[in-house]
Amino acid sequence: MTAPVRATIVEVGPRDGLQNEAAALSTAEKVQFINALAAAGHRVIEVSAFVSPKWVPQMADAEAVCAAIERRPGVRYTALVPNLAGLERALAARVDEVAVFAAASERFSAANLNQSIDQSLARYAEVTRRALDSGLSVRGYVSCAFGCPFEGPVAVEAVLRVTQALLDQGVYEVAVSDTVGVGHPGQVRRVVPALLAAGIPAARLALHFHDTRGTALANVLAALDLGVTTFDASAGGLGGCPFAPGASGNLATEDLLYMLDGLGVVTGVDVAKVTAASTTLAPRLAHPLRSRYVQAVLASQARVSAAAI
Amino acid sequence: MTAPVRATIVEVGPRDGLQNEAAALSTAEKVQFINALAAAGHRVIEVSAFVSPKWVPQMADAEAVCAAIERRPGVRYTALVPNLAGLERALAARVDEVAVFAAASERFSAANLNQSIDQSLARYAEVTRRALDSGLSVRGYVSCAFGCPFEGPVAVEAVLRVTQALLDQGVYEVAVSDTVGVGHPGQVRRVVPALLAAGIPAARLALHFHDTRGTALANVLAALDLGVTTFDASAGGLGGCPFAPGASGNLATEDLLYMLDGLGVVTGVDVAKVTAASTTLAPRLAHPLRSRYVQAVLASQARVSAAAI
Repeated sequence: MTAPVRATIVEVGPRDGLQNEAAALSTAEKVQFINALAAAGHRVIEVSAFVSPKWVPQMADAEAVCAAIERRPGVRYTALVPNLAGLERALAARVDEVAVFAAASERFSAANLNQSIDQSLARYAEVTRRALDSGLSVRGYVSCAFGCPFEGPVAVEAVLRVTQALLDQGVYEVAVSDTVGVGHPGQVRRVVPALLAAGIPAARLALHFHDTRGTALANVLAALDLGVTTFDASAGGLGGCPFAPGASGNLATEDLLYMLDGLGVVTGVDVAKVTAASTTLAPRLAHPLRSRYVQAVLASQARVSAAAI
Repeated sequence: MTAPVRATIVEVGPRDGLQNEAAALSTAEKVQFINALAAAGHRVIEVSAFVSPKWVPQMADAEAVCAAIERRPGVRYTALVPNLAGLERALAARVDEVAVFAAASERFSAANLNQSIDQSLARYAEVTRRALDSGLSVRGYVSCAFGCPFEGPVAVEAVLRVTQALLDQGVYEVAVSDTVGVGHPGQVRRVVPALLAAGIPAARLALHFHDTRGTALANVLAALDLGVTTFDASAGGLGGCPFAPGASGNLATEDLLYMLDGLGVVTGVDVAKVTAASTTLAPRLAHPLRSRYVQAVLASQARVSAAAI
């Protein structure tokens, strides 16, 4: 139960966060946000997605974002790609890394990708081969690893199969993802050991939690205890859950940092600077930031201001 | 890291929750709420506080609440008492148990109780003796065990000293309380082992978390792993943080149940029935319920309704 000394946060706010926000930000606002996150100490930032703007209008300016962001040494700027066409766009935009996204549930794969799981894996094999040949590393997502909005419970065997398939294709890390935000530590303590028992090293795993039911930090704690040290998070708690409109989405980077800092786990990311980045963006959103840490900080400041009057 | 088979939830929504809500509920509304919580399977419910109505107007109807609630066999109905006068009122109101509340921080003790820690302990020694003589069991709280709004960090030694003093006086259990909601699992893993190492059995400890920074469930998980099996929670996440107005307060009972159910920890409490109790109350509050579980349930239902149109 000794927490590891270091952990890596994959900042997904600019992509997974903003993709699920109703507000459409300008390219300049996104660029400022990404630059601020890099300045806060993030070393991996998912900046956009090279998907069809018909599917995801919020990511239509992927090229413009990649062209305008500061390229800070030591930071990996990554983007989602669904297919070879997206990969070619990503290569032209000079990202450092791409991510492919499969699902552990057939019905989610059909709804989200319009393909069976095996069809998507066959497509990603091509994408990954071409990316590696071009000198890019590739990350994989496995959606619905803790539950599916259509199928409900998802078998651990399905998670293992897709995770292993992506690793076999050459992705360097798989983000086992709780797309719906139903995951709890009891599941983490079943799913992660099953992956480890199958021979997947903890260093090849990341966990991607949504905080829809408030369990994300407890899930991270359970995963840390099992040796996982890479976690996705979204500055300010940006994002939402398309299956529960209005509810919380991604685990907030600030909440994660508050816990990791408290555990003495070093990330290199400054919680105050991330908070500044997300609160700068906040007035452009349709709702208050969902990060509980940020809410507490803002409420404390409001109280100090009120008392000072 | 094996979770225990059973845990006890001390439902503090009717007292700690409502005490910190701006909305003033009628006695009938409180009684209906308490009866619904008992029907949901709760075995310990803190129903009110016998404090001065000048201090805490929300608890002014303590006698009326105790007179009107259903007394369900097997349920302990408890109330907070600050002194002998409060205890006499509690005895007359036929509660099953009383709770006294000391602090681990001198400045908080001065602000909250207008007494030093030692003065409060001397007073509670009298209260506890008289309560035990009258056949009531006594629970103790230690406020600010994870941090003080005035002093900041609180030494583990201070928590241990007050906890031990209350146990020595005859309280059967001490709720080590994160009054400000700053606690994180790193602290739980320092404070709880220090108390255990001093010879306090885990069965004499409860943990009382506020979810102000989103860490409450992670704290519970850390405490479960250390053998603690009693946790305070507030239905719907009722309550707030007087030191961060607008921020979250008590850990929501529903969120706790979702995690404990997922871990296979048996509580005897039905999360759907608690959700029904808190959502019935919700229209009377000045804000949406803060329980993330409840928010997710309501958002999912809203989506189903919208799709059905």
